[in-house]
Amino acid sequence: MEKTKQLQCEFADFMKTVEFVKEPKGLYEPIAYTVLQKGKRLRPMLCLLANDMFGGDFDDAKYPALGLETGHNFSLIHDDIMDQAPLRRGMETVYKKWNTNTAILSGDVTLMMANQFVMRTTKPLEAVTLFNKVMIEIGEGQQYDMNFETQSVVTIPEYLEMIRLKTAVLLATSLQMGAVIAGADEEDQKNLYDFGIALGMAFQLQDDVLDCYSDVAVFGKVTGGDIVENKKTMMYLKALELAPVADRERLEALFSGEVTINPQKKIDEVIAMYDKLHVKEAVEQLMAEYFRQASACLDAVKLPEERKAHLRHYADLLSGREK
Amino acid sequence: MEKTKQLQCEFADFMKTVEFVKEPKGLYEPIAYTVLQKGKRLRPMLCLLANDMFGGDFDDAKYPALGLETGHNFSLIHDDIMDQAPLRRGMETVYKKWNTNTAILSGDVTLMMANQFVMRTTKPLEAVTLFNKVMIEIGEGQQYDMNFETQSVVTIPEYLEMIRLKTAVLLATSLQMGAVIAGADEEDQKNLYDFGIALGMAFQLQDDVLDCYSDVAVFGKVTGGDIVENKKTMMYLKALELAPVADRERLEALFSGEVTINPQKKIDEVIAMYDKLHVKEAVEQLMAEYFRQASACLDAVKLPEERKAHLRHYADLLSGREK
Repeated sequence: MEKTKQLQCEFADFMKTVEFVKEPKGLYEPIAYTVLQKGKRLRPMLCLLANDMFGGDFDDAKYPALGLETGHNFSLIHDDIMDQAPLRRGMETVYKKWNTNTAILSGDVTLMMANQFVMRTTKPLEAVTLFNKVMIEIGEGQQYDMNFETQSVVTIPEYLEMIRLKTAVLLATSLQMGAVIAGADEEDQKNLYDFGIALGMAFQLQDDVLDCYSDVAVFGKVTGGDIVENKKTMMYLKALELAPVADRERLEALFSGEVTINPQKKIDEVIAMYDKLHVKEAVEQLMAEYFRQASACLDAVKLPEERKAHLRHYADLLSGREK
Repeated sequence: MEKTKQLQCEFADFMKTVEFVKEPKGLYEPIAYTVLQKGKRLRPMLCLLANDMFGGDFDDAKYPALGLETGHNFSLIHDDIMDQAPLRRGMETVYKKWNTNTAILSGDVTLMMANQFVMRTTKPLEAVTLFNKVMIEIGEGQQYDMNFETQSVVTIPEYLEMIRLKTAVLLATSLQMGAVIAGADEEDQKNLYDFGIALGMAFQLQDDVLDCYSDVAVFGKVTGGDIVENKKTMMYLKALELAPVADRERLEALFSGEVTINPQKKIDEVIAMYDKLHVKEAVEQLMAEYFRQASACLDAVKLPEERKAHLRHYADLLSGREK
């Protein structure tokens, strides 16, 4: 873990040197507020670890890594307007702290700054091409997610494709970008990309579980938020698959928005049903399958195991399978 | 004008070959609706005319030209949410026809598509670098514009800087991008850029005049919209400069939002005051000064006059000084 900690420190130090607040302040302060919030820096770390793994230089990957983090923050700022989410990482969201117009405009400029950061490397064209592609995919994912709100039937494959676009592709691209900058060949780029997809799918399923089995102190979000908002997550879709007819109809009614029920009562009833149906275990099984897939993709990378160890341990740490 | 018409036709034909509607349709239909609306294609034409002027190839500039148009449309889609504008070019705006979330997300993807288009040329890095810079400036301009709504005093220099950022820089960059792709040297790029700034300033002042002296049939917007919304345009700022104390106080009161008055009565009263103070003439004089500046910048470009003639005529045509 020494390497990971070292990169985390180097990246944190680097971020302190970047000027986020300029004129007009009304535009840039919400950007600094969001990008500089404490966070895991997951996307930069994946980029930097992949870059390091192939012998790349930190200084050549640090701006693209920042660009990936900034691009991620752009999508959070806009998603939080669309989802009317008041909290993110335990902090007020931009649209809530300022207003919708500020969140729209600051979000837009966040995206354009991300574009600029991504290009500050010796392979700017490759980096920005990957970045534009992935940012469009994230937008498509968000659209599918919004469609699901009014779509009466959502299948599990549709849901998996949505989370692939909305979450997994950016992790995959972060890894690929690090590899590209370090000069990895296309086959290894692909293996790392696929590693990132599998990892991203697993993380999202983990989030779906945590929404039902966590709380605001550790998770930064309200427990059961997805249930209150009738979000058709994997927990819900798996429950529909596993439930006998009567339970399924009740669950569909509860998520249709047509039943008048106190939000906490609804959460309690739905989670009791999930418990009875062992939905958590079923989703965790699928999650474990994605973690296995991820591991196999990393195995396939044509480097000695000791070079892959840092990234492997980092992924294990995030998955909660290693402390 | 043959060259201009030819480029307009070629560009229109090219646009027909571009696929805008993909899956998910809810995301891409608003983009196609906006980008494919009839319009002057001012930014693409400036790019293509500049490119042609320096002997550049249409096929090498057509995607960047489309990127500039697409980027412009991105900013319209988002500005219309922020300004709560129901109409644009006589058509319903995206947020009005669909909803705010759709306008946010489709706008985001419009910007990213614009980035991709801009890069489809033999000088992708130069093109996308110019594009990122200008799109950030446009965001800054929009922020200043929004600040002015609640800022009690706006000076004429502050207003001019705002319209430079919000409007002029994209015209200037369109010209520069065409010149860069054709391989023009830096001095000529700069001259064309400055030509675009002056032209953009003049066009915006023209818009400010037209808001008071036009109507929805020819202008696609409601006459007096800026007055109803208390927008501190050059008409208003010039009027404050020219007005005796009593008129100035009345005007400030009318634009403070504190006076209860029927919107049409307010428009009539304000325009009567503008007439009395000869505000239109004063703003048109400033506009003419910008057109003169533009012409001088074009004069300075190191090419024989016959190569500059198409762009010069095109600008004259748009300025209404030539039919």
